[in-house]
Amino acid sequence: RIDLDRLMGRIRALGEVGSLPGGGVCRLALSDADKAGRDLVSGWMRDAGLAVTVDAIGNVVGSRKGETDGPMVLVGSHIDTVATGGLYDGNLGVLAGLEVIDVLNDLGLTTHHPVGVAFFTNEEGARFAPDMMGSGVHQGALSLETCLATAGIDGATVGEELQRIGYAGETPAGSVTPRAYFELHVEQGPVLEEAGIAIGAVTGVQGISWTEYTVAGVSNHAGTTPMRLRHDAGYVAAEIAVEARRIARDIGGDQVATAGAIELDPGLVNVIARSARITVDLRNTDDLLLREAEAQMAARVVELEKSEGVTIAARSLARFAPVGFDEAFVSLVAETAQKLGHTAMRMPSGAGHDAQMFAPNCPTAMVFVPSAGGISHNVEEYTAPDEIAAGANVLLQMVLSAAGR
Amino acid sequence: RIDLDRLMGRIRALGEVGSLPGGGVCRLALSDADKAGRDLVSGWMRDAGLAVTVDAIGNVVGSRKGETDGPMVLVGSHIDTVATGGLYDGNLGVLAGLEVIDVLNDLGLTTHHPVGVAFFTNEEGARFAPDMMGSGVHQGALSLETCLATAGIDGATVGEELQRIGYAGETPAGSVTPRAYFELHVEQGPVLEEAGIAIGAVTGVQGISWTEYTVAGVSNHAGTTPMRLRHDAGYVAAEIAVEARRIARDIGGDQVATAGAIELDPGLVNVIARSARITVDLRNTDDLLLREAEAQMAARVVELEKSEGVTIAARSLARFAPVGFDEAFVSLVAETAQKLGHTAMRMPSGAGHDAQMFAPNCPTAMVFVPSAGGISHNVEEYTAPDEIAAGANVLLQMVLSAAGR
Ligand SMILES: NC(=O)NCCC(=O)O
Ligand SMILES: NC(=O)NCCC(=O)O
Repeated sequence: RIDLDRLMGRIRALGEVGSLPGGGVCRLALSDADKAGRDLVSGWMRDAGLAVTVDAIGNVVGSRKGETDGPMVLVGSHIDTVATGGLYDGNLGVLAGLEVIDVLNDLGLTTHHPVGVAFFTNEEGARFAPDMMGSGVHQGALSLETCLATAGIDGATVGEELQRIGYAGETPAGSVTPRAYFELHVEQGPVLEEAGIAIGAVTGVQGISWTEYTVAGVSNHAGTTPMRLRHDAGYVAAEIAVEARRIARDIGGDQVATAGAIELDPGLVNVIARSARITVDLRNTDDLLLREAEAQMAARVVELEKSEGVTIAARSLARFAPVGFDEAFVSLVAETAQKLGHTAMRMPSGAGHDAQMFAPNCPTAMVFVPSAGGISHNVEEYTAPDEIAAGANVLLQMVLSAAGR
Repeated sequence: RIDLDRLMGRIRALGEVGSLPGGGVCRLALSDADKAGRDLVSGWMRDAGLAVTVDAIGNVVGSRKGETDGPMVLVGSHIDTVATGGLYDGNLGVLAGLEVIDVLNDLGLTTHHPVGVAFFTNEEGARFAPDMMGSGVHQGALSLETCLATAGIDGATVGEELQRIGYAGETPAGSVTPRAYFELHVEQGPVLEEAGIAIGAVTGVQGISWTEYTVAGVSNHAGTTPMRLRHDAGYVAAEIAVEARRIARDIGGDQVATAGAIELDPGLVNVIARSARITVDLRNTDDLLLREAEAQMAARVVELEKSEGVTIAARSLARFAPVGFDEAFVSLVAETAQKLGHTAMRMPSGAGHDAQMFAPNCPTAMVFVPSAGGISHNVEEYTAPDEIAAGANVLLQMVLSAAGR
């Protein structure tokens, strides 16, 4: 059994790093706050006797020897957050992994296979796109060179920032494929809470499509320019955001669509915007429907170019197909939960996770615990301690069963 | 006759102050660049022998004695610009006024009434709302105290910035109502160019309504939050921008509508925005139709609050009713233009101007010259030298006729 006080103590301590005045945290990937969080967690890894390595994209892995030398059973997640994040998203999975190690240490137990705990760089994608960058490079889905050269929302590149905070490691990225990969995570949605269920056995992750549109119009005077002569980049950006909503409504089902960023230049009350930047996040568990959503958006963009006399450049920031997890492990998550006396249900993940990068290469599973009010990427994000204990105990059993004792 | 080389030399010299790398200028009101522009122009006023005063809102007036002591004939405009402004908007009117003084000096002519040249603080409203702030205070339409306390887009207040750049003057604002007020300005729209006419005799200024909406939603995860559970401030802002366009189309005629600024917080690709700020600029020559546009927008805002479960705070940034200029002077502008061999037409102004603040208190007129391509509030803003000469010569004759020789 895991020690809930120890785990909660670490969640709270990490939540102090980059904490926001009104609650919550801002630890955007590779920021000073992220560095401080990394230092804290890798210190804990060393305290727990783990051998800590840092790879070329800044992923940090702490490993514990087993009876044999082969690939390890890896527990991972991330400690970067969005700009208005909570204490649990990502952090829970890493610190619960550390708690599993502590339990093994307390019991003086050497598992058959080695066990590792990892935190991956820039899972959120809030500062640098795409998301799941560290795990994507680790598992060969993303190119190290391309990622290092990627500029973030503030202009700095991943490579520069890794150097700056001292996390451009020597270990080659993706040198080891684990024996199995597990990740405990808060659901970040309302499903478990609405169903009154303690544990989600995650069947897979929905497809994610992020596109940034840059609209080039003509700046002009808001008072003197007749409507028929406008090439208003701001209006076009607004139409794209409204279209995203329409697509989600028309496709229905699981389809979600979000325009999270809109920026106008010069952004003044009486100046028609000359340019605009807008991001669109489209997701669906069904790749065919996701493609349909992408096609509808692309068609609307062409229409707007014609009707408004603007040019619109589209850049893909992230495109991940839906991923399915290991069927045997998914069932094992649900059975383990029930054996421990918790209710469980199978469910897909709406959010992207590091686990999806491992799924094509090794047996992979995720454990979800409820998010109060379905709220995440919000400083109010909350999961109760007893729910966290349930999830961490399921994780412990999964590790024990895959690592062998 | 005015000296075109002298006038163009000054337009170019002032265009160097706050010049942008790719052409055009950024001299937002009360910025360092505005201070440098003010220093340059008030230096020229002193060189021309004018007595220069600065009032409590930073308006600068240079005056030239007449045979009598009564109220002066005032020529004015502004030298602040939007962030992506051209060389002519405002600047032309001030420097043509200075050119009129130079001509009087060259001729050694003492007019019957005194003649003055002024530039008014923050006509653009691009940094601080409302626009026409200096002339509004000068003519008693706006409160000095309220304006001094107004914070701009960067948080600094008008009062602080006036102190900082040394233009919080001693002269009480609005101590003198002029005998007459004249303003030469670029049209900033396409009408004169499309009609092939040299001089616009401006009949008045359309009504201006600026509103800032602040939308409070709930930030949440873009992937896990079902569409039905969203309170997306970014989507609501986009709907407001699209509604502005619809209102302009439905009301038709002169109605224009612009959403020039949209800002989302936190503004990240995978976070539903928790809050948004959007500005809407509505204008019409007919106040009843302008009220209709305002009412339609207000109704839509209430609808969006209900359907999206957000709260929307509306703040008026500027509200000026349509203004008509002095009928005798409007006719005189057209007649003078024709006497000088130029084509002329009567037309309303789509942009707000300092002249509209004087119109209720003294006989007022404006002279428009064409804007190439109808482009303004854009670094490409252009009016040809011969068109400028035509406008400045009409202004000279208007001053001579009103000041008496
Ligand atoms: N778990 C999580 O919030 N991941 C960030 C990537 C995403 O937007 O889904
Ligand atoms: N002339 C001019 O551009 N004035 C600024 C105020 C406005 O009309 O938006």
